[in-house]
Amino acid sequence: MSYIYFDQAASSFPKPKKVGEAVLEAINDYGANPGRGGHTLAVRANDVIFKARKTIAMMFGEQNPANVCFYLNATQALNQAIQGVDFKEGDHVITTSFEHNSVRRPLERLKDTKGIKVSYIEPAVNGKLLLELIEQEINENTKAIVVSHGSNVTGTILPIEEIGMFTKVHDILFVVDASQTAGILSLDMKEMNIDMLAFPGHKGLMGPQGTGVLIIRDHVDLIPLIYGGTGSHSEDVHQPEKRPERYESGTLNTPGIAGLLAGIEELHSIGIESIYEHEAQLTTYCLERLSVIEGIQIYGPQLHETRLAVISFTIEGIDVHEVAMILDQHYQIGVRAGLHCSPLTHSLLGTEDGGAIRVSFGYYNTIEEVDRFIDAIKEIKSFF
Amino acid sequence: MSYIYFDQAASSFPKPKKVGEAVLEAINDYGANPGRGGHTLAVRANDVIFKARKTIAMMFGEQNPANVCFYLNATQALNQAIQGVDFKEGDHVITTSFEHNSVRRPLERLKDTKGIKVSYIEPAVNGKLLLELIEQEINENTKAIVVSHGSNVTGTILPIEEIGMFTKVHDILFVVDASQTAGILSLDMKEMNIDMLAFPGHKGLMGPQGTGVLIIRDHVDLIPLIYGGTGSHSEDVHQPEKRPERYESGTLNTPGIAGLLAGIEELHSIGIESIYEHEAQLTTYCLERLSVIEGIQIYGPQLHETRLAVISFTIEGIDVHEVAMILDQHYQIGVRAGLHCSPLTHSLLGTEDGGAIRVSFGYYNTIEEVDRFIDAIKEIKSFF
Repeated sequence: MSYIYFDQAASSFPKPKKVGEAVLEAINDYGANPGRGGHTLAVRANDVIFKARKTIAMMFGEQNPANVCFYLNATQALNQAIQGVDFKEGDHVITTSFEHNSVRRPLERLKDTKGIKVSYIEPAVNGKLLLELIEQEINENTKAIVVSHGSNVTGTILPIEEIGMFTKVHDILFVVDASQTAGILSLDMKEMNIDMLAFPGHKGLMGPQGTGVLIIRDHVDLIPLIYGGTGSHSEDVHQPEKRPERYESGTLNTPGIAGLLAGIEELHSIGIESIYEHEAQLTTYCLERLSVIEGIQIYGPQLHETRLAVISFTIEGIDVHEVAMILDQHYQIGVRAGLHCSPLTHSLLGTEDGGAIRVSFGYYNTIEEVDRFIDAIKEIKSFF
Repeated sequence: MSYIYFDQAASSFPKPKKVGEAVLEAINDYGANPGRGGHTLAVRANDVIFKARKTIAMMFGEQNPANVCFYLNATQALNQAIQGVDFKEGDHVITTSFEHNSVRRPLERLKDTKGIKVSYIEPAVNGKLLLELIEQEINENTKAIVVSHGSNVTGTILPIEEIGMFTKVHDILFVVDASQTAGILSLDMKEMNIDMLAFPGHKGLMGPQGTGVLIIRDHVDLIPLIYGGTGSHSEDVHQPEKRPERYESGTLNTPGIAGLLAGIEELHSIGIESIYEHEAQLTTYCLERLSVIEGIQIYGPQLHETRLAVISFTIEGIDVHEVAMILDQHYQIGVRAGLHCSPLTHSLLGTEDGGAIRVSFGYYNTIEEVDRFIDAIKEIKSFF
């Protein structure tokens, strides 16, 4: 019985075959340091990195590939975005209770160190009413709005476009965490007035772990988070002004970025809409079947509301971790249980004590796998 | 004619075959998120990461694998080490003119933001006299000494052991940048009294790019640089105290770390002393042949002094970048020309204007390759 992987919101799996091949090629054929030498192997590494920047820039509505910066993960990208803003004491940031700890903890850190103020607004679980709540919280000190495009707990999609229009009018910096949506929903920074966009390479974009991206639009100037060698401008004791070097010190993850490029190319050949549709079909089917099982509480948007392929639920009277363990050990189905690094979302749902069981689907999951999962849940319920 | 890669100080190449295989296995067989779920695939990813921590801890004389933290590169590790110290205004740091920008720029940043003072001592090119100079600079505000174990420009090895005895007696934090020596020279944090040790995975340790390590000994408490999801302790708005989570937010580079583990295992099966000996043999041979060519100026330690497999030189009357370009294009030999992200070293050598040509050797380079390189240099000289 093959293993069913329903933890796509943590990391997508399997990867397209080309991803591993591209990574291996980078390691075995041109393992030199990009931007750290003019010789043939370094140039080849550099070319792949540049192609990845260009592809990503185009995909997300950014003109300048030099504004695409590579990091270890989306968390580092978000830290560069949030900690990079030159906040002064009393500056105000609006964010939501849907945020992952990768947004919340950097903001809490800035509360402690720089004396900024942070408002966490609580939208409805379907993401509606967000703009009204933002309008209520806004004041003359509001400098930035940081919002997750989609919740990693409930699959809720937040109305990024509306917020972007609002921040543009009010001249507020707009930072979007697209960790759950990059590669799933279409995103255009220019059209959506997003100033900084952060996302991982290893989730919807189908790349390997070890890759995260921050796109920083031309007009946004950040304080670098990491200082060091930049290949060029070595004589300067400070970070150079030139991008991406200013925000990217040290050797990049060349094999990882080569794999990410391959993942994105595969994604484009499948078509981002086809991926979303397939995932939506699995999600609706799973919700339909899950919702008729007695004693199951599902959190998040209603059945036919637009959402991501993430479903959180609890089973009355059974510990979530126990369910996850039985699914793994007995049914060979990998899901995740707990708080998913997003405690405020669980407060919103009323699941802050134990969290919830989360299943999340990807392009390579199938209806048959959902069936096996539903059968397993039914059996587990009947045991208790 | 096969390409000769003499840029090992930037990134080692080729990698042992097992490295690529381990990376590919991680991507294709267990591409889940380590520490972010209890299911089989996540556990497998987690096991590999833990084994890598344990192997690295043992290799560098650290008892607790949880003190081994993984980053994108050595630069990020050094930033966590240096920016992580709770420096106060007026605190004093001693470092050397051999440092890479990954040490110098974070220190300069702290000069600007926290008002620390930094002394750059200038040892002899063979690394001697360093301790005397440190003694001259030390004062009651000296809080840390940050020293590169080996120069990436001259191959100079600095007397880490002596400095460690000194910092221990004076209760000063000792941070070592082992970017050029990890996997080449033996390093024991406990014996050498090193408090924090940073190094890349993709140089001497033969792992892939996208990996860097900081080992933080038990008694050292740092301010985290990156804030975010840590898999456990999700409910806490602050970074958890627990290591390595405290200093490692977000998804790790699982395939990269799997590859690094394979690289280290290969290294141990060859034997670190055999690697050093082979590299030393190539270096001595190259220095002997290079030094008898008229008009060549070699920088760094004398011929028979202990050094790393890094040689920097200039050819009278020929631009260093031109030499590197001809070596690459005409002779298929990859070397690096310029400042190598270490401008103060070039001030020390008197090569701050154009820098130098650097050749650096690894375990897979051969005497025949050195011969081809020497012949090429002779021909280039004769053309001008």
